Amino acid sequence: MITVTAARKLILENVLQPKVERVPLRIANGFVLSEPIFSPIDTPPFDQAAMDGYAFSFDEWDGKSDLFLNGEVQAGNYLPQNIKPNEAIRIFTGAALPPGADTIVIQENVIKRDTRIILKDDKLYKGSNVRLQGSQTKKGDIALSEGHLLSPASISFLAGLGIDKVNVYSNPIVSIIVTGKELIKPGGAMSKGKIYESNSFGLSAVLAQMNIVPVSVEMVDDDEEKIMKAINNQLKSDIIILTGGVSVGDYDFVISSLEKCAVKTIFHKIKQKPGKPFYFGKHQRTLVFGLPGNPASVLTCFYEYVADAINSFTKKEYFKKIMLPLANNFTKKPGLAFFLKGKTISNGVSILENQASYLMNSFAMADCIIELEEEKEHFDKGDMVNVLMIT
Amino acid sequence: MITVTAARKLILENVLQPKVERVPLRIANGFVLSEPIFSPIDTPPFDQAAMDGYAFSFDEWDGKSDLFLNGEVQAGNYLPQNIKPNEAIRIFTGAALPPGADTIVIQENVIKRDTRIILKDDKLYKGSNVRLQGSQTKKGDIALSEGHLLSPASISFLAGLGIDKVNVYSNPIVSIIVTGKELIKPGGAMSKGKIYESNSFGLSAVLAQMNIVPVSVEMVDDDEEKIMKAINNQLKSDIIILTGGVSVGDYDFVISSLEKCAVKTIFHKIKQKPGKPFYFGKHQRTLVFGLPGNPASVLTCFYEYVADAINSFTKKEYFKKIMLPLANNFTKKPGLAFFLKGKTISNGVSILENQASYLMNSFAMADCIIELEEEKEHFDKGDMVNVLMIT
Repeated sequence: MITVTAARKLILENVLQPKVERVPLRIANGFVLSEPIFSPIDTPPFDQAAMDGYAFSFDEWDGKSDLFLNGEVQAGNYLPQNIKPNEAIRIFTGAALPPGADTIVIQENVIKRDTRIILKDDKLYKGSNVRLQGSQTKKGDIALSEGHLLSPASISFLAGLGIDKVNVYSNPIVSIIVTGKELIKPGGAMSKGKIYESNSFGLSAVLAQMNIVPVSVEMVDDDEEKIMKAINNQLKSDIIILTGGVSVGDYDFVISSLEKCAVKTIFHKIKQKPGKPFYFGKHQRTLVFGLPGNPASVLTCFYEYVADAINSFTKKEYFKKIMLPLANNFTKKPGLAFFLKGKTISNGVSILENQASYLMNSFAMADCIIELEEEKEHFDKGDMVNVLMIT
Repeated sequence: MITVTAARKLILENVLQPKVERVPLRIANGFVLSEPIFSPIDTPPFDQAAMDGYAFSFDEWDGKSDLFLNGEVQAGNYLPQNIKPNEAIRIFTGAALPPGADTIVIQENVIKRDTRIILKDDKLYKGSNVRLQGSQTKKGDIALSEGHLLSPASISFLAGLGIDKVNVYSNPIVSIIVTGKELIKPGGAMSKGKIYESNSFGLSAVLAQMNIVPVSVEMVDDDEEKIMKAINNQLKSDIIILTGGVSVGDYDFVISSLEKCAVKTIFHKIKQKPGKPFYFGKHQRTLVFGLPGNPASVLTCFYEYVADAINSFTKKEYFKKIMLPLANNFTKKPGLAFFLKGKTISNGVSILENQASYLMNSFAMADCIIELEEEKEHFDKGDMVNVLMIT
């Protein structure tokens, strides 16, 4: 039996190099860039009108004469003709300035007389109302760095540079195997001694929140051959999550099945509650997690350990770790770390009722998991504790 | 031109009754329950072993005699035979107690001699190591209330009650129409006067984050007939988002197209920067948002207004509104509310560089939008400001 700290360290030591994939920008939200992105173009790609108005050459204007209108340019068009001194072009927001023009007087600041305009703008300067080419991003500049988490604004930014594919850290391929002779699928008829299977639902939901769809979700009887077959079928996954059957009871076959499938045990059992019989092993590139089958243990162990392993693939922080003052006193036995369902309140974090590992009613109300360290026994209101936010 | 506050109020006054749909529990994560859920069963559904051990009737035992082993029950099985005085049944975690048994002595606390066990547990009491039927949830109890946001733990909880479908507030059907003669799709070849279309990318990404896939994404030229056709095609959506063409320039056809499509204007123009020409209208049950086309205006207006409208459908808070002290001084002109790209720091919020509405490089780094109220001109470091978290 090892400590929580040692378990976390062993998981991080055993994760592998992340994989990289090229994905369409349209689905890249929430992924992390695996390399810097250099801008392929200047943006704006040309000197661009910031307002509706009239474009002209500031230096070639004497500062008092009217300007003669000689054409019009709408956004999306391009006027290749060179602008002459004392000439102006009608221009609209977003349009490219014609060659020679460098300044825009907005339409509200001119008096228009047929083909002439009289400028009424004391504050006009060379470059007024113009967005210079490359003023956001210059061709060749680093637009975003490796490690950048793509947000909607980053996606919009990259699209504006003309980028439609990006290299990102891949999601791991995850498969789920829930074990237990007592399990019936929700919606099915109940019979004596059975319970409804819920762990694959909870795990699929938290994976969905992480933008990961498990490649396989299987429910298997407490039968060594069937469990071995299910494991062997999934050994090409990056991560296999098993639930149930990881203790040492007469009908707990997960550990023996894993051994027979040549999965190497890295550790089995952590000094913690819930989830003491937690198992972690490895088969070539595949990480294998055996989570104790009570629903609260499953989700707690997922949030506290499996999420960190997934983070090492995707480089993405899924659940924030913060410190908050406790709102309750709490006494536990020493020697085990406790993970408790918690709820943040305005000035701290509150330990919820109903903490037993089979109780999900409290977990459904929780927004965080509180970690109480192994050796300490008495916790007082106001003590700072580690909190993992799960919403 | 109306104020930000008036705009928000008008949007909320014009949203419609949310719709409800019945979805499989497996995809219900992140939805909000539209009705309370009553538990269809007791959970646990029977008195259940919490540990591996031996089950017997506490009251019918004399407190000192050995117990005679008479059978075994594994989780998932059911032993219908009534337990007799001074008899015990071998039992495993999760199994149903046989009729008559009410207490479990754990296997570590017995000495086993052939078919007898000697109990070595001073602390044993009636009900030790047993999870009573209904001790989590009783049949008919409210399991979760209307308005509950389904988290992975809630999903697991409901699955454990045997529930496989839930009634939730539906996502709205959203369509996106981006307008502009100057737009080229990212990945395409650039030509003079054109820019890459980025708004549909930013909007699709933020909708994806809200678990919404737009039913249609269309790019349309600055042409009234084409814009009208695109609008008419989408009038069955709950929400139409248009970008660009909402000003009053010679080539801005969105407002006139909406009028010709019988969309009723609720307001046009807000005292704000960016996004002053923001439009909101309604056609029967369809809400129509016209967002000024600069990418930063589009996302700002989405986060500040459209997200609230979507929230009225789904009852879900997408982006947290908090108050933080400013880390910079800032001066703006009075009469317009400012929405600024911001970044939270340990003790407040910092206003980023590059705030112009066409600049997305700063937005890509932002984790929040700072709102500076309309009438105030000077903001000092330490002033509390409204912040909308967008990550």
